[in-house]
Amino acid sequence: MFFASDNAGPAHPSVMQALMDANTGYASGYGADPQMTRVRDMIRNAFEAPEAAVHLVATGTAANALVLATLSNPWETIFCSPMAHIHEDECNAPEFFTGGAKLTLVDAMDALMTPQGLQDAILAEETRGVHGPQRGPVSITQATEKGTVYNTADLIALTDVAKSFGLKTHMDGARFTNALVSLGCTPAEMTWKAGIDAVSFGGTKNGLIGVEACIFFDPAVSRQFEFRRKRGAHLFSKHRYLSAQMLAYLTDDLWLTMARQANAACAHLVHGLQHVPDVTLLFPPQSNLLFFDAPRALHRRALAAGAVYYVTRGDVDDGPDDELLTGRLVCDWSTDHGMIDRFIAHLTR
Amino acid sequence: MFFASDNAGPAHPSVMQALMDANTGYASGYGADPQMTRVRDMIRNAFEAPEAAVHLVATGTAANALVLATLSNPWETIFCSPMAHIHEDECNAPEFFTGGAKLTLVDAMDALMTPQGLQDAILAEETRGVHGPQRGPVSITQATEKGTVYNTADLIALTDVAKSFGLKTHMDGARFTNALVSLGCTPAEMTWKAGIDAVSFGGTKNGLIGVEACIFFDPAVSRQFEFRRKRGAHLFSKHRYLSAQMLAYLTDDLWLTMARQANAACAHLVHGLQHVPDVTLLFPPQSNLLFFDAPRALHRRALAAGAVYYVTRGDVDDGPDDELLTGRLVCDWSTDHGMIDRFIAHLTR
Amino acid sequence: MFFASDNAGPAHPSVMQALMDANTGYASGYGADPQMTRVRDMIRNAFEAPEAAVHLVATGTAANALVLATLSNPWETIFCSPMAHIHEDECNAPEFFTGGAKLTLVDAMDALMTPQGLQDAILAEETRGVHGPQRGPVSITQATEKGTVYNTADLIALTDVAKSFGLKTHMDGARFTNALVSLGCTPAEMTWKAGIDAVSFGGTKNGLIGVEACIFFDPAVSRQFEFRRKRGAHLFSKHRYLSAQMLAYLTDDLWLTMARQANAACAHLVHGLQHVPDVTLLFPPQSNLLFFDAPRALHRRALAAGAVYYVTRGDVDDGPDDELLTGRLVCDWSTDHGMIDRFIAHLTR
Amino acid sequence: MFFASDNAGPAHPSVMQALMDANTGYASGYGADPQMTRVRDMIRNAFEAPEAAVHLVATGTAANALVLATLSNPWETIFCSPMAHIHEDECNAPEFFTGGAKLTLVDAMDALMTPQGLQDAILAEETRGVHGPQRGPVSITQATEKGTVYNTADLIALTDVAKSFGLKTHMDGARFTNALVSLGCTPAEMTWKAGIDAVSFGGTKNGLIGVEACIFFDPAVSRQFEFRRKRGAHLFSKHRYLSAQMLAYLTDDLWLTMARQANAACAHLVHGLQHVPDVTLLFPPQSNLLFFDAPRALHRRALAAGAVYYVTRGDVDDGPDDELLTGRLVCDWSTDHGMIDRFIAHLTR
Repeated sequence: MFFASDNAGPAHPSVMQALMDANTGYASGYGADPQMTRVRDMIRNAFEAPEAAVHLVATGTAANALVLATLSNPWETIFCSPMAHIHEDECNAPEFFTGGAKLTLVDAMDALMTPQGLQDAILAEETRGVHGPQRGPVSITQATEKGTVYNTADLIALTDVAKSFGLKTHMDGARFTNALVSLGCTPAEMTWKAGIDAVSFGGTKNGLIGVEACIFFDPAVSRQFEFRRKRGAHLFSKHRYLSAQMLAYLTDDLWLTMARQANAACAHLVHGLQHVPDVTLLFPPQSNLLFFDAPRALHRRALAAGAVYYVTRGDVDDGPDDELLTGRLVCDWSTDHGMIDRFIAHLTR
Repeated sequence: MFFASDNAGPAHPSVMQALMDANTGYASGYGADPQMTRVRDMIRNAFEAPEAAVHLVATGTAANALVLATLSNPWETIFCSPMAHIHEDECNAPEFFTGGAKLTLVDAMDALMTPQGLQDAILAEETRGVHGPQRGPVSITQATEKGTVYNTADLIALTDVAKSFGLKTHMDGARFTNALVSLGCTPAEMTWKAGIDAVSFGGTKNGLIGVEACIFFDPAVSRQFEFRRKRGAHLFSKHRYLSAQMLAYLTDDLWLTMARQANAACAHLVHGLQHVPDVTLLFPPQSNLLFFDAPRALHRRALAAGAVYYVTRGDVDDGPDDELLTGRLVCDWSTDHGMIDRFIAHLTR
Repeated sequence: MFFASDNAGPAHPSVMQALMDANTGYASGYGADPQMTRVRDMIRNAFEAPEAAVHLVATGTAANALVLATLSNPWETIFCSPMAHIHEDECNAPEFFTGGAKLTLVDAMDALMTPQGLQDAILAEETRGVHGPQRGPVSITQATEKGTVYNTADLIALTDVAKSFGLKTHMDGARFTNALVSLGCTPAEMTWKAGIDAVSFGGTKNGLIGVEACIFFDPAVSRQFEFRRKRGAHLFSKHRYLSAQMLAYLTDDLWLTMARQANAACAHLVHGLQHVPDVTLLFPPQSNLLFFDAPRALHRRALAAGAVYYVTRGDVDDGPDDELLTGRLVCDWSTDHGMIDRFIAHLTR
Repeated sequence: MFFASDNAGPAHPSVMQALMDANTGYASGYGADPQMTRVRDMIRNAFEAPEAAVHLVATGTAANALVLATLSNPWETIFCSPMAHIHEDECNAPEFFTGGAKLTLVDAMDALMTPQGLQDAILAEETRGVHGPQRGPVSITQATEKGTVYNTADLIALTDVAKSFGLKTHMDGARFTNALVSLGCTPAEMTWKAGIDAVSFGGTKNGLIGVEACIFFDPAVSRQFEFRRKRGAHLFSKHRYLSAQMLAYLTDDLWLTMARQANAACAHLVHGLQHVPDVTLLFPPQSNLLFFDAPRALHRRALAAGAVYYVTRGDVDDGPDDELLTGRLVCDWSTDHGMIDRFIAHLTR
């Protein structure tokens, strides 16, 4: 009963097969492999962006930090939600890769930044000539770290605010596809048509071993990105194994299929939890993860029964039985519905 | 009627005389001037800290950024008030000098961090293994950017929280002496006896041309600081002119005298403003600067009459006459009481 | 006839199988996978270093840059050969990860730094108080970028010089195992017994997809390394796929077998080239790569016949037929002896 | 008998007087003082560059590091002489301010880079796609750290090489005026007319307390420079005291007069040394400093008699009497010819 993270399940067999298939003969390194040409074409097609610059890296933090460094100057501040992965879970990687930019936290509802909150935050960073941090790019996580999803109107409203100040926009798409299938829109509608300038297009949390694409709709910064990636030690010599994963991902809609499976598993969890007494869902679950409040005793029982997930805002083992603690449950493409049913059964027993 | 900043008035004549006196013959550079030996002794005496490491730089931002870089690692976050100069007014200098550390904002009342707020902020930075920013030093501005002052019990309460997490503490003392004479305590009582590890001991805002002392009560980090200062381009070749200013500052209690004059001028302003209709003081003024709300029309009249000060939260020239805007008034050692009286007269007319 | 790089051949089938085997069920991420415990044990055993800190990353540049950053301060200079990968081929990654340290180039013979050259270089960096760059770690590439190998006496002589100045030592072991089997010594003899403090233990150029181990014989810096790796975006969420590769590498002497095959292929190349008229070997080939001078016409013929390798110091297509150009030939575990024979045949025809 | 440095003598009385004159009333800070407007105009006039961007900082290292950071990217390498101050004496400040750029050392004769040496160095940095450091700006010290001076033809030859690769050029003019009066040309001829893009225009070594102007002939980068200066903590709040020094410097040709005096003192030293047995001048002295070889015993006698200067390449107190050691003698505007005569007398006695 493993719900700890979408980075803990196996890669999809098609991805493994693609790795095996790629493992023959010689291939030029550092992104000059023929598979990368196909990857680039397929991503451009999928995003209806024939000019986009596309580069691969192996971790989500690398994708975010390198894209943000490319979009910003060291004397700027990046606007993001207080729950943003770039703020909470990257051990200052954005600060490192940008050369010392700052992050400004924007008021958010259910981890979703609001246009008003963004406008207020930008206005509050007055810059005051050269004294304050200058206004830099806006980073939007889609789906959010809390499992919620911006619809395209939300995105347009946010990017409109950014554009009214001349600011660039970045989408942290570690769970891009989970959001995409949740909305049922096209990649273009969720990105450049909604005013997004650059995307961390994640694969690692959605069935790959470790590949993310960095997509710039304006390719002018592509060369700069390549230097940043190389000196960040994120250019793979045996790059074909990154390309192969991404090729498999984009072939036969595997990316969409896996995200739908993960979201469906999460919906199944939601359905089950709604019937568990004393359990309250915290955010509207719209992708592949959810948060819920439950009494300590309930968490303890589930964990004792072998469930694996994170409990925050308190010690599961120490405190009153009826105190509410928050659990996080994450599904991936491989999450078994039977496993979910057993988990729900343990909770309701 | 100039109240825009305490960096806009002249240096004290004794400081200028000290510069003239220092300007004879040859002197070794880079801090090896004989005056620096005396500066070090006088500061150690004043702070009752015979082992303290003492170094000079020429700007307050350099003092803060270099001290914080010395106390922290690039993967840490520095705790400070949302109004901290290091956060709002240094264009990411702390992020630059630390190599990419983050700043975490602590809830504050009247720009004074509360122990509870600090504890909450530290706890909220859970670190989560290597994923989150790690907890770094606490930076306390004394007097604050809003003119308020921590008393020694406040300081001890804050540093106790920091110490309970094993964190170092920094005092941004750009207005150190204004706070000191406001409290009437000793430098030791306001620093190491209250749990402070390192101080930016300001002179620039208090009658010098441009000198700040960086004081470390534990001298173990002194050598590291010197490398950081040099590669930050903040080691002066003709260092004697920094030493001379600081010597004058510490001689015959000039530092205390000037701070008392600045605070007295501010108190005079407060007294005058209390009798002006429609004016409301925003923070308890405890040092040499104050904030007040007044209708737009009142600000406009004062500025038209030649007063110079910053008005925030709105455009003086555009908006309803009776909308309240915030003005900031700052005094220094040279602020003339007659000038204050004229200013008050313009407001009350 | 592919001799362009040891990063262009396939991974060993056992490595691929290990990936497949690892691809079942859930595994904790970020290095907490059970395979990593075994990797750590096996490396400690192989190096006879039960206390060593062991961490994995996916690129050689990441290993070098992170280890060097851990061993140095930003105000220091790192001593290395003028042909060092960290100097020539990492687009300033060491400068980036160290926060701005410098590299000082040491006189080298056949890409091998000499003890005298190292001593001279260290002495020449006089430091002059805080003015010059301070003396930092010494980085030794084994095998070198030119295919030569330090014997253990050479290594001891170099590390003795470093130690006489109190400097740490790093081994860039991108081709560690090629050197090891060339010398026929133990990993311990080639590292800590020879005075090496930390190793980039390469797997990528020797049959893996992309894994390098960073080994610190003094584990005191291990925690710092982990923060640096995380904020450098080099901590893999699905870490088990790195562990699995390294496990396969260390199992049944696969690492040694693959390096022996690569070296044997190179020896076969050497043997063949020695009978080709107009070809001169440039460095004593002691591992898996070699450099040779040959007339432009000869290179052109080989390349036209389908050989793939780098030619430096001149344009193959433009210039006199008899001008000497330098070719680099690299073998890996998969290099076919028949392919070598065909290549030699093309040259001699 | 002080010849240790041109940063050890007093500031010129006119400079001190200007400081006193500036010390009245209120003045806006951070470069908005009215004096700065005049400084900008005077420098533009002096350099016949009506569009140039002009900014002041207080140390030569700040000027160099900030200008180079403005002209380069972190993945580039800066070309300079092996004796360049930016390489030898700034404790990695250029690496810090650029965010990790590298320095490539160019062959030099008498500390003067040669066009051929520069071309070779640039060609040797092959870049190899994204792998090597990319080619960045060329930094030329005028007068050099060894007291030699490039004539305008030399400068044009160097900048022509740089331009043929599309590289920007920087002049480290810590001793700009000493070179200028030595050549007898105009500032324009020694800079933009000779292909220089940006200048560190030094005042500190030539009679000021501590001011350098950073001049960009293409003002497009001016705003970026201002952010870099601020976050580098090099923007002075009480900026008028920097402006005042520079104003005095440029008034009534004081800068030229002081440089002529320093150079004349050096020429007087040269004349005297030429008659001292066993003394050999090492570089053609063309500005205000010289290097000479002399037996250890001679150095010892001079130093014992009270002379102050640096002796390199050996310990004055330990070694054979007749071993040659190198002394460096530096003059400034205040160097007294009688003092020189006494020094020569001690040597010849």
